[in-house]
Parts: sequence; structure tokens; C-alpha cells
Amino acid sequence: MRRARAAVAELIAPVAEGMERVNEILAAQLDEDSPAVRDMTGHVGRFHGKQLRAALVLLSGDATGNSTDEHAAVASIVEMIHLATLVHDDILDGAEKRRRVACVNQRWNNQIAVLLGDFLYARAFALSTELSSRLCSRLLAETTRRLCVGEIEQSTRRYDFEMSQEDYEAISGAKTASLYSAGCELGARYPGGNEEVGAELAAFGWNLGLAFQIVDDCLDLVGTEDVVGKTLGADVADGKVTLPVLYVYARADEAQRSRIRDVYTLPDLEDRARLLREECDLGPGIEYAMARAGELLLDARKRLAGLPESPARAAMEAAAEFVLDRNW
Amino acid sequence: MRRARAAVAELIAPVAEGMERVNEILAAQLDEDSPAVRDMTGHVGRFHGKQLRAALVLLSGDATGNSTDEHAAVASIVEMIHLATLVHDDILDGAEKRRRVACVNQRWNNQIAVLLGDFLYARAFALSTELSSRLCSRLLAETTRRLCVGEIEQSTRRYDFEMSQEDYEAISGAKTASLYSAGCELGARYPGGNEEVGAELAAFGWNLGLAFQIVDDCLDLVGTEDVVGKTLGADVADGKVTLPVLYVYARADEAQRSRIRDVYTLPDLEDRARLLREECDLGPGIEYAMARAGELLLDARKRLAGLPESPARAAMEAAAEFVLDRNW
Repeated sequence: MRRARAAVAELIAPVAEGMERVNEILAAQLDEDSPAVRDMTGHVGRFHGKQLRAALVLLSGDATGNSTDEHAAVASIVEMIHLATLVHDDILDGAEKRRRVACVNQRWNNQIAVLLGDFLYARAFALSTELSSRLCSRLLAETTRRLCVGEIEQSTRRYDFEMSQEDYEAISGAKTASLYSAGCELGARYPGGNEEVGAELAAFGWNLGLAFQIVDDCLDLVGTEDVVGKTLGADVADGKVTLPVLYVYARADEAQRSRIRDVYTLPDLEDRARLLREECDLGPGIEYAMARAGELLLDARKRLAGLPESPARAAMEAAAEFVLDRNW
Repeated sequence: MRRARAAVAELIAPVAEGMERVNEILAAQLDEDSPAVRDMTGHVGRFHGKQLRAALVLLSGDATGNSTDEHAAVASIVEMIHLATLVHDDILDGAEKRRRVACVNQRWNNQIAVLLGDFLYARAFALSTELSSRLCSRLLAETTRRLCVGEIEQSTRRYDFEMSQEDYEAISGAKTASLYSAGCELGARYPGGNEEVGAELAAFGWNLGLAFQIVDDCLDLVGTEDVVGKTLGADVADGKVTLPVLYVYARADEAQRSRIRDVYTLPDLEDRARLLREECDLGPGIEYAMARAGELLLDARKRLAGLPESPARAAMEAAAEFVLDRNW
């Protein structure tokens, strides 16, 4: 955890000043006259987290020589959309904790979590309509739609042990990689033009985000709760069959497949991730998934090759290496 | 019900052609490659309902001589935002039916209802970013924020039997009237300019929407489920203390107040609206609330006085009369 923190700090260093501005904007945006709303947004502000998506907007701007006065606002908007998805995701997953702060839906209830997420989306879109260019509104509205479709698809593919890797990646990409991709593209392109470089940076963000999600899926199965800082085993409990399990399942005999399905579906089981580890050797699945993440990160780094050397580019390259080592 | 349907048809008659276009746009917007999403949006399409908000956008355009080719798209966006709030509202209220079609959260689950609402919001914003003017994106992002704040405030003021009428109206206005108001303002102003007329039409929409909500609150207490077409008594079950009850409570003695609070709060009570009617005479509260709605509608009609006579203006005046008689 400490190592991860140091790594994130290093990553953000080239845009530290811009990130201060991002946090000022976020604080102002989450401030409301309504005391009820302020109480809640204050709580969400504590999620804080790594703000990797916002940092990538600024880094992409710097690395492509495209930074503007409005990049901090764009980064804040991306971060607010991410916060909205986190709040709504807590309803989806029935997760018990996130970053060791009680989830919104535990502290209040589902009603409030739905409304707070809606409020964050609305704030994000409202801020985007105040920018000088419409590119941000356009790209992020479209990204939010993709993100929702990805989540809906994922929800309907629960307990699908025979999903293809292609479908798994399309769904994981839509729900996670799309916002990374949009953030990097906006960094490189906002307020407009610069389409070729934008496409390269979008691909960088997509590959990074997808790799991030794959590592996340691995940690959910074999991570340590204290280190990762959120409830693990949630995917198994929710019926999400992720890449490591798909890999192991495809190579298992029928008896073992049946036991894997049981761990996912039998009622009243506690700690299904541990049971799954006892039931089958997840090792080859984890290894395969991590190798796939490594492949994606290699491709991500290649997308930066055309950019001039700079601290921002170096930080983005470091980010792509560092995803594989993450234990947060 | 039949009478109400005839009245709505009459109301929409001057913009019938535009409403066909609205429904074409909605059908196209709710269409998705994802089979899972299409299944759900098809279901939402069946809510359909009165589409009063969309009709008011078109009527406001016609009545102010401000109709453009893009008004149908603006009306569709307003309707999609309304649909999104309905879907998310079903999570909030635990309502069992809406327009006799199973609610999204009954047919699927809370997860899907959250995502489908998010999808509808995202679609609405995405479409608004494609319009030639940014006025629609700006006004509706801001309206959505207000709407969420209103809902959050309402949620935190549950069981507040001493709320002032002013607070009740501010909250009801934010959660319901704001979208009517924005729709009418956009009709009168889109793509821009026309601010004075826009302000009058915004006030028309606000008063109409607030009156609509007050009548809705009365029907929830004393309506007939078969006629209204949705679960009644939901406000009492949810702890929402509405204008009629606030009025009666303020004039009740302590013994009666205590009984009113019991009906709201004691566990395991069925049909709390009926119990409330048995516990106290809601008559004066209903009468007071309906009179307040009448006052608002009178003010709404005055806002149209400066407009030239037209079928659209006549339909809007009829709408303002008709809200008081509604039993749907």
C-alpha cells in the first residue's frame, strides 16, 4: 500500500499543480446550498482515491503539448463521472466497503445513493456545458452511454461460464476502459483538432484501463483485503465470471466445472473467493490473465512512442508498468 | 380515465405531427445494439404515458412563434430525462406498479433500474450535444442537478411534520416543476435569445408543474388506484409529509398529531393512506391544497396572456385548467 502510494505520487508529480486546481474545482462543484447534499458530497469527497483518471487527462495534455487553461476542468469532469459510477456501483455490487469508508448505500440507503450518483453526473454535465468547446460534453456523454451499456451487459451475463474472452474484454472495456480512453483522448485533443494523436492516446487509455480492470478482477480472487482496501470476492458473490475463472473453467473437466458453478451459485456460502481457491487451482488462470494485462500494457506504451520525451510521457509509461505490480 | 385520455389528446392535438416525430426520435434513441439494453428500453417505451412534458416543449414553441426543426429533438430529450427520473424513482419509492406495467426494478432488479436510468440520462445528454445550440444541454444539465437536489432534500425531510409550506413547495418545485419549467422555456427560447418570453413561459411551466405535483400528492391520499393507475398511499409509506397532511397536522391537537405520526411510522401497517383517512379528516387539507393548486394555475394562465391567440396557446390554457380535474 505504501509502495503503491509512493508510485501514484510519482506518477502525478509532473501535473501536481494542475491536480491542485482539479481538487479546487471538485470542492467547488460538490458544494451545494442544500445541507443534506453537502453532507453527502463531503462524504464522497473522502473517497478521493488515486484520481488516476483526472491525472491522465492532464498528463495526456502535457505529453502532447496540448495543455490549456480548461484541462483542469475537463479532468474534474472525468473524475466526477468516475465518482458517480462508484456511487452507483455500490448499489450494484452490494459491496460493504470501499477504500475503508462506509459506502454511500450503507451509510444512507439505496435511494440516496441513486440520487447522489445522479447529482454527480448532472454536475459533471453542467460543468462541461460551460466549457468553450463542446468536445468534452460530446465525448463524455457518449462515453457514459457506453459505460452504462457495458454495465448492463455485464449484469445480464452473470453466471455465464462460457463467455468468450472477446466478450469479456468488450464488456470490461466498455465499463472501465472507456472512461480512461476518453480522458486521455480529451487531454490530447481538447478543445478540438489533433485527431490522429487523440486516437493514439485514446488507445493508450483503453489498453491501460482494460489492463487495470483485468488486474482488478485477479485481485478480487486472490488479493488481500487489508492491502486492496475494499471487500474482495465480490465478483464471485455477484456471479461475475472474470477472465481467470473463464480460463480455468474452459480447461476443467465436468466434475470440476460443476464444483466451480456450485461455489458461484449455492445459497448461503461465505467467502466464495476462498472456496473457489480451495475448489480449483486458480494459478494458471491468474497467470494467463496477468499475461494478457501485460500484453495490453505493452501496446499501451507503444502508443506513446511518437511523442517527444517529457516528464509527462515518462509518468504515463511508468503508469503502464505499474498497473501489473499494483496491489491496491 | 377515459375523460382524462380525451383531454390529453385534445391538449396534444395542435402539435400531433411534432409528437409523432418525437416518438420516432425516442424509438431511435432507445434502440441499442446490445440485446439486453434493447429488451429493457423496449419495456420503458411501454411506460409511454402522457408525454405532457414533451408536448409542452412543442406547444411553447408554437405559441411563441419560435418553433424550429430541432424542437422535436429538444422535446425528446426532455422526455428521456423524465423517463430516467421515473426509472430511478421506482427504486426510491419501492412502488409496485406504474401505469399497470411492472416497474423496472420489479421485473429485473435495483441494479438494472439504476443502470437503465443512467443510460437514459446519458442518451439524453448525448443527443443534446448534437444540437446546433448549447442552450438545451446547459438548461437541462442544470435542471437535472436541481431535480436531484430536490429529491435528496425530500428524502432527508421524511417524517418532518412541521415543514413549512414554503419548504414543501421549494422541494416539490425542484423535483417536479423544474423540468416542466425548463421544457417550456426551451420551447419558447431554443436555440437562443427571446429571454423575456422565455422567462414567462418558464414561470408558466413552473406553476403548472407545481400544481400538478400538489394534485398528485392529494390523489396519493384520496385517489382510487384503478383510476390513477399506480400504487397509492406510497407517500405515507415512504414518510413523505405532503401539503394536505401538513395543513391538517398544523391544526390538530397533540393527541391527533400523535395518531397521525403513528400511521406514518408504526411498523407493519398496511394501506397507510386508508388508515390516515380513518384517523383524521383529511378533507380540509385536501381542500386547502387544491385551492393552492388552483392559485398556481391561475398564475400560470396569466403568463400566457401576452401571447397571440393560437391553438397552441389555447391548448396550454386548457392544460392549466385540466390539472385540477385530473384523476390520473
